[in-house]
Amino acid sequence: MTDEIGTLGPAGTYSHRAALSLGDDLRFYDGVPEIADAVERGDVNSGVVPVENSIEGSVNATLDVLVEYDLYIVGEVVVDVEHALLAHDDGFNVVASHPQALAQCRGYLRDSYPDAELRSVSSTAAGVEEAREDPAVAAIAHPSLADDTVRVIDDSVQDADGNSTRFVVLAREPADGGDKTSIVVYPGGDRPGLLYDILGVFKERGVNLTRIESRPSKRELGDYVFHIDFEGNRTSGADSHDEGGTDEILDALDEHVDWVEFLGSYDRVG
Amino acid sequence: MTDEIGTLGPAGTYSHRAALSLGDDLRFYDGVPEIADAVERGDVNSGVVPVENSIEGSVNATLDVLVEYDLYIVGEVVVDVEHALLAHDDGFNVVASHPQALAQCRGYLRDSYPDAELRSVSSTAAGVEEAREDPAVAAIAHPSLADDTVRVIDDSVQDADGNSTRFVVLAREPADGGDKTSIVVYPGGDRPGLLYDILGVFKERGVNLTRIESRPSKRELGDYVFHIDFEGNRTSGADSHDEGGTDEILDALDEHVDWVEFLGSYDRVG
Repeated sequence: MTDEIGTLGPAGTYSHRAALSLGDDLRFYDGVPEIADAVERGDVNSGVVPVENSIEGSVNATLDVLVEYDLYIVGEVVVDVEHALLAHDDGFNVVASHPQALAQCRGYLRDSYPDAELRSVSSTAAGVEEAREDPAVAAIAHPSLADDTVRVIDDSVQDADGNSTRFVVLAREPADGGDKTSIVVYPGGDRPGLLYDILGVFKERGVNLTRIESRPSKRELGDYVFHIDFEGNRTSGADSHDEGGTDEILDALDEHVDWVEFLGSYDRVG
Repeated sequence: MTDEIGTLGPAGTYSHRAALSLGDDLRFYDGVPEIADAVERGDVNSGVVPVENSIEGSVNATLDVLVEYDLYIVGEVVVDVEHALLAHDDGFNVVASHPQALAQCRGYLRDSYPDAELRSVSSTAAGVEEAREDPAVAAIAHPSLADDTVRVIDDSVQDADGNSTRFVVLAREPADGGDKTSIVVYPGGDRPGLLYDILGVFKERGVNLTRIESRPSKRELGDYVFHIDFEGNRTSGADSHDEGGTDEILDALDEHVDWVEFLGSYDRVG
């Protein structure tokens, strides 16, 4: 079995930086679904994908992959994000980067380069490759990608200090346990207080939620699934079916919702 | 005072279609913050901006504008979205559209045009303008934008049926009332059960939530504001300070959270 880790390439992406904290036997892919495909097929043992940024919020492609693929979260990694504007010189009229990075610098770009065309590319490092080949293109990426061809035109161009991104590690089998658990629930109705009852399952057991994020169910406007992270794990206590164990929580949720999906119990690994 | 309505241009965007249900004295802008600026300055009387799509979810730029600007929601409009791929012919290698539209067609583009470069432009209609000028560029936009130059290469290219987008109407003063109210709360802490207590304020009063959406507070990872929509309005009952009135709900929330911001009570107008 391969020990390779799949992540977003080419070399130099923030995903690459996150994956390096797990190992250096890496294989690069163009997008989040491509990484999930590779994990599912067994081409790689695990995949590292971004899930949440402190400025721009959720990475929708990852949240959707977590629902659509039969994969588990087995770890998380948090990476500080420090964006620079990289180009040959200031004679550019296009700024190329990953759409999340462009969004994290939305205010800066609007104020400083209102006329620049924004080009979404598959990764921050792919934007730098375009900037290297074409003086009309600037990139937004980590300043370490500067070289003899493209230099740092401006640094710290993100719209808020303390920018960081959380990545999750995907695998075909769940980890043995960890201090944090992720699930997805589909309430499947809109009676008053439904979400309150869902949260009550956690409150009654003294379990802390660290995050709740809605995503469209893709059925109709106003119909959502909820991604929920909480403190606790599938193997906590002698028996996770005991009160407050993860399996017991999943059983209790099942009484309120249309379906609930366990995504994994895991720890921070990087 | 102007009666003009600001919205996302050029002519032919879905925002344009939404704004036409309010009036035909329109002025076009390049982005959501530019529309909010125009409303705030009084260049236009109101602005129509997208807030939520049934496939791709929230429009982050709009949620952030609702927090950052001193504006109110005075109405909402829901528009059916029917995306087509428009180009001179199939000799294109770039697909240009608004990033939300590209995301709504993410699966289609990955399957059908895996090698095409995706270019984020300020609107779907701006993408069509690029496609008209350059045979190497295709656009994703409403099929009515096809003409003698660009034709429909493929229709219904969104990743799910029943695609629709909800728009909100922004103004400097709140409306007199309406059946739905939007607020933003910043809990400002992470004690267990905090979100549960917030939702309890609604549950105890039998008030139905139609939507809850988290956004980063932009302070640090894991710190959020919550956008909450609920059924009810500021002037319901003889006195909105009565039990279950909107002002009474805001007062009750104030006891649990760091701050709460009233965004407006409004009806569907289109």
